[in-house]
Amino acid sequence: MTTFAERETTTDVRALLDRRVPGRPLEAPFYLSQEVHDLDVAAVFGRQWLYVTTEAEVKHPGDYVTVEVGPWSVIVVRDDDGQVRALHNVCRHRGSRVLHEERGSVGTMVCGYHQWTYATDGTLLHAGEQAPGFDPSCFGLKQVAVRVVEGLVLVCLAPDPPDDVDDVIGRIAPYLAPHQLCRTKVAAREDLVEHGNWKLVMENNRECYHCEAGHPELTCTFFPTYGYSIDELPDRLLPVHARYLRAERELERACDERGMPYAAIEEISGRTTAFRVQREALDGAGESYTTDGARASTKLLGDLDVFKLGRLSLHLQPNAWFHFLADHAVLFQVLPLAPDRTLVRTTWLVHEDAVEGVDYDLDRLTEVWHHTNAQDGTLVARAQAGVASPAYEPGPYAPNEYQVDGFVTWYVERLREHLA
Amino acid sequence: MTTFAERETTTDVRALLDRRVPGRPLEAPFYLSQEVHDLDVAAVFGRQWLYVTTEAEVKHPGDYVTVEVGPWSVIVVRDDDGQVRALHNVCRHRGSRVLHEERGSVGTMVCGYHQWTYATDGTLLHAGEQAPGFDPSCFGLKQVAVRVVEGLVLVCLAPDPPDDVDDVIGRIAPYLAPHQLCRTKVAAREDLVEHGNWKLVMENNRECYHCEAGHPELTCTFFPTYGYSIDELPDRLLPVHARYLRAERELERACDERGMPYAAIEEISGRTTAFRVQREALDGAGESYTTDGARASTKLLGDLDVFKLGRLSLHLQPNAWFHFLADHAVLFQVLPLAPDRTLVRTTWLVHEDAVEGVDYDLDRLTEVWHHTNAQDGTLVARAQAGVASPAYEPGPYAPNEYQVDGFVTWYVERLREHLA
Amino acid sequence: MTTFAERETTTDVRALLDRRVPGRPLEAPFYLSQEVHDLDVAAVFGRQWLYVTTEAEVKHPGDYVTVEVGPWSVIVVRDDDGQVRALHNVCRHRGSRVLHEERGSVGTMVCGYHQWTYATDGTLLHAGEQAPGFDPSCFGLKQVAVRVVEGLVLVCLAPDPPDDVDDVIGRIAPYLAPHQLCRTKVAAREDLVEHGNWKLVMENNRECYHCEAGHPELTCTFFPTYGYSIDELPDRLLPVHARYLRAERELERACDERGMPYAAIEEISGRTTAFRVQREALDGAGESYTTDGARASTKLLGDLDVFKLGRLSLHLQPNAWFHFLADHAVLFQVLPLAPDRTLVRTTWLVHEDAVEGVDYDLDRLTEVWHHTNAQDGTLVARAQAGVASPAYEPGPYAPNEYQVDGFVTWYVERLREHLA
Repeated sequence: MTTFAERETTTDVRALLDRRVPGRPLEAPFYLSQEVHDLDVAAVFGRQWLYVTTEAEVKHPGDYVTVEVGPWSVIVVRDDDGQVRALHNVCRHRGSRVLHEERGSVGTMVCGYHQWTYATDGTLLHAGEQAPGFDPSCFGLKQVAVRVVEGLVLVCLAPDPPDDVDDVIGRIAPYLAPHQLCRTKVAAREDLVEHGNWKLVMENNRECYHCEAGHPELTCTFFPTYGYSIDELPDRLLPVHARYLRAERELERACDERGMPYAAIEEISGRTTAFRVQREALDGAGESYTTDGARASTKLLGDLDVFKLGRLSLHLQPNAWFHFLADHAVLFQVLPLAPDRTLVRTTWLVHEDAVEGVDYDLDRLTEVWHHTNAQDGTLVARAQAGVASPAYEPGPYAPNEYQVDGFVTWYVERLREHLA
Repeated sequence: MTTFAERETTTDVRALLDRRVPGRPLEAPFYLSQEVHDLDVAAVFGRQWLYVTTEAEVKHPGDYVTVEVGPWSVIVVRDDDGQVRALHNVCRHRGSRVLHEERGSVGTMVCGYHQWTYATDGTLLHAGEQAPGFDPSCFGLKQVAVRVVEGLVLVCLAPDPPDDVDDVIGRIAPYLAPHQLCRTKVAAREDLVEHGNWKLVMENNRECYHCEAGHPELTCTFFPTYGYSIDELPDRLLPVHARYLRAERELERACDERGMPYAAIEEISGRTTAFRVQREALDGAGESYTTDGARASTKLLGDLDVFKLGRLSLHLQPNAWFHFLADHAVLFQVLPLAPDRTLVRTTWLVHEDAVEGVDYDLDRLTEVWHHTNAQDGTLVARAQAGVASPAYEPGPYAPNEYQVDGFVTWYVERLREHLA
Repeated sequence: MTTFAERETTTDVRALLDRRVPGRPLEAPFYLSQEVHDLDVAAVFGRQWLYVTTEAEVKHPGDYVTVEVGPWSVIVVRDDDGQVRALHNVCRHRGSRVLHEERGSVGTMVCGYHQWTYATDGTLLHAGEQAPGFDPSCFGLKQVAVRVVEGLVLVCLAPDPPDDVDDVIGRIAPYLAPHQLCRTKVAAREDLVEHGNWKLVMENNRECYHCEAGHPELTCTFFPTYGYSIDELPDRLLPVHARYLRAERELERACDERGMPYAAIEEISGRTTAFRVQREALDGAGESYTTDGARASTKLLGDLDVFKLGRLSLHLQPNAWFHFLADHAVLFQVLPLAPDRTLVRTTWLVHEDAVEGVDYDLDRLTEVWHHTNAQDGTLVARAQAGVASPAYEPGPYAPNEYQVDGFVTWYVERLREHLA
């Protein structure tokens, strides 16, 4: 949403972008100002490919999900031909929202204001009492660009979506394919409003420098060596690292036997649709994100034949990360609400045939990330409060925060591109 | 309230006004932006004649009502000479509000801060401990322009109120006179905060395209053919229309016998103090706004001698509508609180001698509009959420929404005038 | 915190400052606009010396208090060498708040995000996993200028604090010294959020024209002749004034015997670090701020040997006032939260050896100012609502409001200075 004052503002944002020091966080206005927030919504959320839901959530024709991305409301719906569509949730008459629930199932979509009625593919089927010459074919719900990659639904709100998405899909699909997300179901969802800018939420996610002290549940299985290069490793982590190397060798062997890719691909700054994917070993029993590392669900996903496959982790810029385990998947979406408020939506998927209380226990399944999210929420709120001080000055990233630097660099590139 | 940035802003609003397509709703910034909200307050609410209360609410000398219109607070008070006055509720010393209650009765008005004391006509009677040379006659409460038309109190906050109001008063008074509002009392009041821009609230009121599906209680008596021309009538409404025509003929006869005017006068766009007035038949028993159309109060208003007189409906731009029935009146005021929040104040009047529980039942009296308001609140909130999407594009009004188009056209004229 | 639009804005504030009429309140934008609020935070709270806490609250090494002044968070801490320090509460890594509680005691200060660890003097002691060449001495917590005057802790957030503070300290110290604040303890604290601009809160404090009608508890002991010159006294106050003169003569004698200064020094407009100090008699028993004027605590402060010493009252611009009694002290801090919301923090100190329930009763100790604050909060909210009306026009100050005029004049000087 652009404001009247945007023309003047962008000049200043340009100066701020030009001043950015690589290896350091952004200056305060990027986290505080309404103008930058509006610009982020327009330049990042309005232009990039965004993960919004999964095929598991729109399994049958008429199943829909609505997602609010900044000021946009998007309907993701499986149409009568079985195709996943994304449509703007805005009636073509006087602009009312058409669907009001977060999810559901419909035959047609009827706007509750004046009963304009749309098919699941967006076509306007009926609009009462029109003047002669009214052409319904001009008033279908507006289409949003959509891609499905192995069960993940991505949309792009721009009229000219970045076309490198198909390259990304081609490269991540082999990693995702064995988990067969389209044969899963939602076991749990959690919406958490964090009191910080969306970029602080993402920066928090892109490093594990804070994990050792901050995430006791997560580090039961997540090796806190994440992000370190070997020669930077603090002595206290050397035993953990040795365990990590052993687990990695075992994981690689298991993957090689099954023809499953695991090597890291990390393409963040320098490309539009940026991503990182890697399968890595977990600590403890090595099977899942639980406090002992053992499976949380007894039903393996897809055609997997073994539980000990570590975590397939995927980062998609600007706002998502995912962990695919052998027994479940956990997906994270970050949606900006205001300069200082951000929605973090977490979804846990299990095999579509898994039965709660029989194959999985909900508390055990969600325990690690429920606590980890809450802990991150506190850290983010403290960072937001801190950078609001005029005394804040961006300090140096440690080497193990290189992915945060990558995130910020990518972000700066996107804003520059938008303002060009 | 003007902001520092107004000068720059108005240029852009001008461009938006110039782009307005007749027959279509306004573009999104008109419903969303703080700048437009401030402009609306200044250009519309600060310049036009506004209905604020009734004589029934300030019956005796010293009786007062306070009304907040945007940043203004206005005292409507009957002074010691029996005249209805409107005064700014701002102490002439350091600006404190003088009266804090919504209504009450006073001998003098004493500012609670430093005890400056004003007569009911606004004269400063007393200010303690002043320096020599202090002239109390320079510090009376500022007067607000006021008109009373058959019991309705209108005020105008501008120093130069539109002078066509007297013409309007002359033309609507004969319609109102038989109901003798000055001999009524307030039976009920309801303040509803709707989550939408005030213009969406008004646009919602100015058509009944949405009534059939949206207002089951209202359409017990309100013919949903409202706004249609005969050749546009959908087939399903033809039986209703036939009933309407019969009821109209009967109503016209009753009016003619009593010398009461009923013909529609509709002067909306093209004039400053714009209005619409018409007496029309009601469905069902045809007497009142109840779920069966029968009277809600057994005491006829004024000197009326019959209940079956339909509804005398009055629209005043920018923000009011009224229905005068034989047995009661229901009055609506729309006050902007923020770009996305609007107060809708509903007042039900009955004969001053009517006794609750004897002559009328409060639930039955208020049922139809209590529900109708709540339903409209939901529709308006959905419209507000929808037009916030960058995908929103104003669609075509149907022919039966011509009064919405009139409202919008009138509004555009007022903003143009203000910015000229 | 400067906004992108500040450059344009300040031009208009300059015009508003130039239009200010001496002897009258400020125009409405000074109380309403976000731009002026931001400017106040930068030009007043970011540049002037501010009272923030007392030595009694940071008695031992490691004891700390955190105070939020606009967007700043300041740690006041007694360091390991016993010196009172003020530090910015912003980690030098990624800007997180370091301390989160309002007060406490620490050995070192550990940022909870990535465990950067600071000594109580701000030195960075430890930052894990840094690249070679990282120099911890460059990343200590930033220092804030601090002064201690007889137990009151003042800070200044500017890099170049006004240097006339030392002159002020030299002049007020003899008045404060006998009360020995460093040997007190906090008996009670009260945070009240008033719904008005911080300047309306201060203006309310700087006159007692409103006390007679507005503060029944306060005027048990506070002579409502405050601010009047003899020839302005209304007749009804003449008996009070006679009582006041007798009490003053008695107080002066008691002070002279003990070598305690009492004469008023009033240096408000015309200097940067502005103040007013005076010891004055109290009504009733003349000992303390209670509803009968008798002591609230049986333990005398410092080396005082008598209870009947009236009130030593100190005003510090921009945002503090203090009353030092023989048996306790009550300290007031005003902190802007938003254009229309202000925090008033009240602290009651008693002798460090006084025992609650034995030497003092908490309700009796806090009764007068608890009620007076609440009454002022109501008056301020009504003033805020009133000046928001476009009909507001600054009226004349009465002669007994000359200190309000002094406050406003000082404020205008500071803004002019900042914009120069």
